[in-house]
Amino acid sequence: MSAEASSYPTDRPAATEQERLARVALSLLGEPGETKMTALVAELGAVHLHELLLGETDIEGLHTDVAARLAALDPARELEVADRLGVRFVVPGDDEWPSQVESLAGAGALHDRGGVPLGLWVRGPHRLDRLERAVAVVGSRAATTYGDDVASEIAATVASAGHVVVSGGAIGIDRAAHRGAVSADAPTVAVLACGADRVYPQGHKAMLDHIAATGAVVSEAPPGWAPHRIRFLARNRVIAALSHGTVVVEAALRSGALNTASWTGRLQRPLMGVPGPVTSAASSGVHEQIRLGAMSLVTCGADVLELVAPAGERLVEPRRGVDTERDRLSTRRRQVLDAVPAAAAAGTDSIARTAGLGVREVRGALEHLETVGLAEHVDGGWRLTDEGRH
Amino acid sequence: MSAEASSYPTDRPAATEQERLARVALSLLGEPGETKMTALVAELGAVHLHELLLGETDIEGLHTDVAARLAALDPARELEVADRLGVRFVVPGDDEWPSQVESLAGAGALHDRGGVPLGLWVRGPHRLDRLERAVAVVGSRAATTYGDDVASEIAATVASAGHVVVSGGAIGIDRAAHRGAVSADAPTVAVLACGADRVYPQGHKAMLDHIAATGAVVSEAPPGWAPHRIRFLARNRVIAALSHGTVVVEAALRSGALNTASWTGRLQRPLMGVPGPVTSAASSGVHEQIRLGAMSLVTCGADVLELVAPAGERLVEPRRGVDTERDRLSTRRRQVLDAVPAAAAAGTDSIARTAGLGVREVRGALEHLETVGLAEHVDGGWRLTDEGRH
Repeated sequence: MSAEASSYPTDRPAATEQERLARVALSLLGEPGETKMTALVAELGAVHLHELLLGETDIEGLHTDVAARLAALDPARELEVADRLGVRFVVPGDDEWPSQVESLAGAGALHDRGGVPLGLWVRGPHRLDRLERAVAVVGSRAATTYGDDVASEIAATVASAGHVVVSGGAIGIDRAAHRGAVSADAPTVAVLACGADRVYPQGHKAMLDHIAATGAVVSEAPPGWAPHRIRFLARNRVIAALSHGTVVVEAALRSGALNTASWTGRLQRPLMGVPGPVTSAASSGVHEQIRLGAMSLVTCGADVLELVAPAGERLVEPRRGVDTERDRLSTRRRQVLDAVPAAAAAGTDSIARTAGLGVREVRGALEHLETVGLAEHVDGGWRLTDEGRH
Repeated sequence: MSAEASSYPTDRPAATEQERLARVALSLLGEPGETKMTALVAELGAVHLHELLLGETDIEGLHTDVAARLAALDPARELEVADRLGVRFVVPGDDEWPSQVESLAGAGALHDRGGVPLGLWVRGPHRLDRLERAVAVVGSRAATTYGDDVASEIAATVASAGHVVVSGGAIGIDRAAHRGAVSADAPTVAVLACGADRVYPQGHKAMLDHIAATGAVVSEAPPGWAPHRIRFLARNRVIAALSHGTVVVEAALRSGALNTASWTGRLQRPLMGVPGPVTSAASSGVHEQIRLGAMSLVTCGADVLELVAPAGERLVEPRRGVDTERDRLSTRRRQVLDAVPAAAAAGTDSIARTAGLGVREVRGALEHLETVGLAEHVDGGWRLTDEGRH
């Protein structure tokens, strides 16, 4: 547990502390990202909503089930327990609060999950207010070696350029993304569907411990909570909202990564996809999204940087391929090359006529073309070599 | 040689015959698609230009080189020779003239090559006026097996749907495209850089003969002309102009297929590209064009049909992937599934609380989930199976 992870909340004003405790209590009441709850907090404020719910009675004047459950909670103790686990609870108003997640306030009103998280539980030294240009790299759990390799390259490249890589800590593309960032000695952020103190999947213990020691493990779910299915959907929205843009490396048509992608789209942030063989089901969801115009095609970390860096700062030069011998020819020599036949050889006079140039000049040019391997002298005439033909 | 291939020009009016002969003569004078020539024909008409050039004298009153060369030509004899080779010369005003190539009149004014062909030399029974919705399928000569397979699938699919497949008769993707169309028992059109009577590359003799017997072999270059480098560029423009849209299957950054693509773009017709592994140089040119927004991504023949068929006629349904067991669940059973933990098992009461449903209903739903393989009963509780997790 780092010193930083346990350094709050002693020096905070009481009002903020009351807010934090109310948010802890409300977090414990329902599932992460329930739209009803996040909308009420946005409308009434956490403290006021907490008071209202605590006092809520039914038609017979009895406390409602919600009121009873709230009264039984001890949010201060939850914070102490979290603190002992190395987990802090970051809420709006904290210096560390990642304000980019506020964009969720306007997004997803028609969905079960949506709205701004009540708070984020964080384990690890990387502060969440230092993610302005974070890049989410996500994709299929059933990734191919190809997908793993590309995800690692992209993560390593964007991490080396100073962008924190955010992913979901899952097997497949998520793991490759985190590993790519780690290989670049850069902090990375894993957003989990279970509590930030927990390890899921179990095989990722070493990786998640490393991330918690160098970056941050984040969850909207309180410590100790299990990875329920529904929490993955809420988690995907947090990955999208923390990040300035999202790259999907491999995603089948029904992949959860497309859920993260759709949140990125709703937040109107750059949404990128890496193509693959059209014969690979693991790339089919990405192809579909690019085809429909929802995603931009990217092929490498440099392409991603162009789209997530401040406008114009990381432009990718149009790719031209390597220069060929032909590129190095003078215009007139190229004119001669263009007039050399590909199959049966032609005489210098015939080539000169085709090129519209004098015979003497053409003869000199042909000798040069032979020297650089683009034309060859055969059967008393000239024709293109294999290289000259391409 | 089919009867149709040698059926002209006896029943044509003399005026058109004069036009045809002028166009033959002008074709023999320079390289195919020279912008200076096509622009002059567009401005002055072939017959008038032919007369002007025939009478052209220099400052000393001598016939110019061009006038002398024109005078030495015998276009009627060229047509006879072509006829014996099974090649006809199709010009504007002929019933068979493919009017879609007229779009070239406005395109490429700044290029060495450009403008409407003076005529097209054709070998084979397929009439060029029956190409309204032809699809060009082109790509790298240095194609991969992957590219070949995808090109064949696309060609076979669009050919089966009644679109003639146009390509360049070259090795690699071109060959795969022609073969795909042939496998669908459909006519296909090969546009060559050499004369329509010639075979280049030599290894494609059987294929080109088959195309000439069932479809059409086309060239802007007169019979007998060799495949010079410069003629490939003029040829690419004809492929684009004959076709309603172009699909590039594999193209490295410097591939000639991108030249065909840029003509398609200039003609403002659908330009499509098939992605591949980002690690494959053979796909890099396609990825670059999709990334820059110049090409639409397509993954199969059905995607191509959507873009080349009359608007709205061949829409591809959004791809949803196969239905899973989860899709077949009722809303409430799905709610229960969402509340089942992925790792350590939870009791029915805990799952009921998470789901916000009654214990009795949840118990029934859990048993159903077990039956369909999404949840399992372990350690006195319930958790998701591997399938339930996805």
